[in-house]
Amino acid sequence: MSKYLAITGGVGGAKLALGLSKILTPAELAFVVNTGDDFQHIGLHVSPDVDTLMYTLAGLDNPETGWGRVGESWNFIETFAGLGGESWFNLGDRDLAVHARRTQLLRAGHSLSDVIHLLYAANSIPFTTWPMSDDPAPTRVLTDAGELDFQHYFVRERCQPVVKKINLAAAGRALANPKVLEFLSDPDLAGVVICPSNPFLSIDPLLAMPELRSALAATQAPVIAISPLVGGDAVKGPTAKIMRELGLPQDAGEIASHYGDLLDGFVLDQTDADLEIKITHSGLAVRVAQTFMQTLDDRVDLAQTALGFLQQLK
Amino acid sequence: MSKYLAITGGVGGAKLALGLSKILTPAELAFVVNTGDDFQHIGLHVSPDVDTLMYTLAGLDNPETGWGRVGESWNFIETFAGLGGESWFNLGDRDLAVHARRTQLLRAGHSLSDVIHLLYAANSIPFTTWPMSDDPAPTRVLTDAGELDFQHYFVRERCQPVVKKINLAAAGRALANPKVLEFLSDPDLAGVVICPSNPFLSIDPLLAMPELRSALAATQAPVIAISPLVGGDAVKGPTAKIMRELGLPQDAGEIASHYGDLLDGFVLDQTDADLEIKITHSGLAVRVAQTFMQTLDDRVDLAQTALGFLQQLK
Repeated sequence: MSKYLAITGGVGGAKLALGLSKILTPAELAFVVNTGDDFQHIGLHVSPDVDTLMYTLAGLDNPETGWGRVGESWNFIETFAGLGGESWFNLGDRDLAVHARRTQLLRAGHSLSDVIHLLYAANSIPFTTWPMSDDPAPTRVLTDAGELDFQHYFVRERCQPVVKKINLAAAGRALANPKVLEFLSDPDLAGVVICPSNPFLSIDPLLAMPELRSALAATQAPVIAISPLVGGDAVKGPTAKIMRELGLPQDAGEIASHYGDLLDGFVLDQTDADLEIKITHSGLAVRVAQTFMQTLDDRVDLAQTALGFLQQLK
Repeated sequence: MSKYLAITGGVGGAKLALGLSKILTPAELAFVVNTGDDFQHIGLHVSPDVDTLMYTLAGLDNPETGWGRVGESWNFIETFAGLGGESWFNLGDRDLAVHARRTQLLRAGHSLSDVIHLLYAANSIPFTTWPMSDDPAPTRVLTDAGELDFQHYFVRERCQPVVKKINLAAAGRALANPKVLEFLSDPDLAGVVICPSNPFLSIDPLLAMPELRSALAATQAPVIAISPLVGGDAVKGPTAKIMRELGLPQDAGEIASHYGDLLDGFVLDQTDADLEIKITHSGLAVRVAQTFMQTLDDRVDLAQTALGFLQQLK
């Protein structure tokens, strides 16, 4: 049986993950998720990317806001703010229950892997989903306003500070999830898809773990990435802004270079078709597709493209 | 200036407290609240009696359920239960915010007294309210089903187990709130009202603290209690059931005897007027009144009766 691994971060990655889940069976597809965004907030362990994927796969995501749950209510945070509590991180009443249950299970001694398994099962998601690590690996962002916790940069400060460096030292010290390493050396592995997530904030934390990076470099299966940039800008989030601040060209070719030798192929948005020759010259196979996913069909089509591309690269 | 102290527990006590708050100014009236019901639940510090009084004084209490907040939503607990979390203690979304904020402030090093001050102020309640102690003093209930945490007995088991003994050992070790002791020795103190709360579960925890009991016995101000029994039954809660299980007669006279020498006067419900002679014979002043409070006017009238009684006893 051919098996596939999808590496995913936030909302963009989850869209493609949903597309893949409509084509492949739970025996064929597994996910590994960035946990560099995880943080402790008002006594709760919050796992934004893990939950974004969970809500998306369970059909509970809110398509209007692009984050959080559909049909959410906000009575907790409104009351909490009225009592002088912090409200910059907007916690919905139902979302809060996920954080509370996760925190409770972690405190009882369960690993983050076990907790994800339990929460996904409770939401009837049959796909194996691993955190990149069971260790805390908080991403920090060095900015012109000082070094910030990831969520302070991302949510509280709305990505306004100028990024000088992404500090992934904690991920560098974390133990990569052994299940992911095992899956990467599985002879049945037929391909790895790096979803269209922010390379610097969502994918680099995984690659900062030496064993995970090595296992990805060593896997016999082809590895492809889907460009998160469309026409030099991100569909959502600060990818292009960060590239500018880091002094990098804001184009999809730069994303391909960023992943470098890890990749066998790269999926470019049709808007950026003019970059195909340049990227092909760097020795990478390129597939041009519509990467901008508005409908479920768009998600499934891009997933189909990715899988076809991987089969061709095998 | 004449000052008054009201000792209160749950819903019945809070009703009279509200009545008193409509007659007296914040400079004239202070409350001391049972915290024997406090417990840790899913990582939160829950203070049921403190919150019942807060919601009642702020006009946020739910008159239909008799507990919790008006206009409450239940999305957190519904989702939490769906994830395998405990749901026997029904936490509303807005109520949860109070527990979360209290827990956060306590963890940051604030005393329970400080937290109550802050939460009451945030709810625009101008009346000084003290916890009986800043120490944990959890009441435990020895039953035919074993010794239970108070909320396990009261909420989870719905007071079904037969009570053999109320274990107030923790209160016995707790340090009584020094502000309450100070207030009891204030020369301006004109009276103490023991509200119509469950004597065994809501008032005895305070009296189990030796300094508080002594200060109440020693105060120059008259002390009265309002019977929580009407016609041999409690308006709400398990007072009569517990009295039966402890082998006590289920009548208001027994409540008067229970408080014994601490009291100067006792307010009896009009339904129980036939007990007046017997209680008076025990050397206690008695006032007969309508203690069953359905409307705000009932609350104010009973408060007026209590204050008039205290002035007469002075």
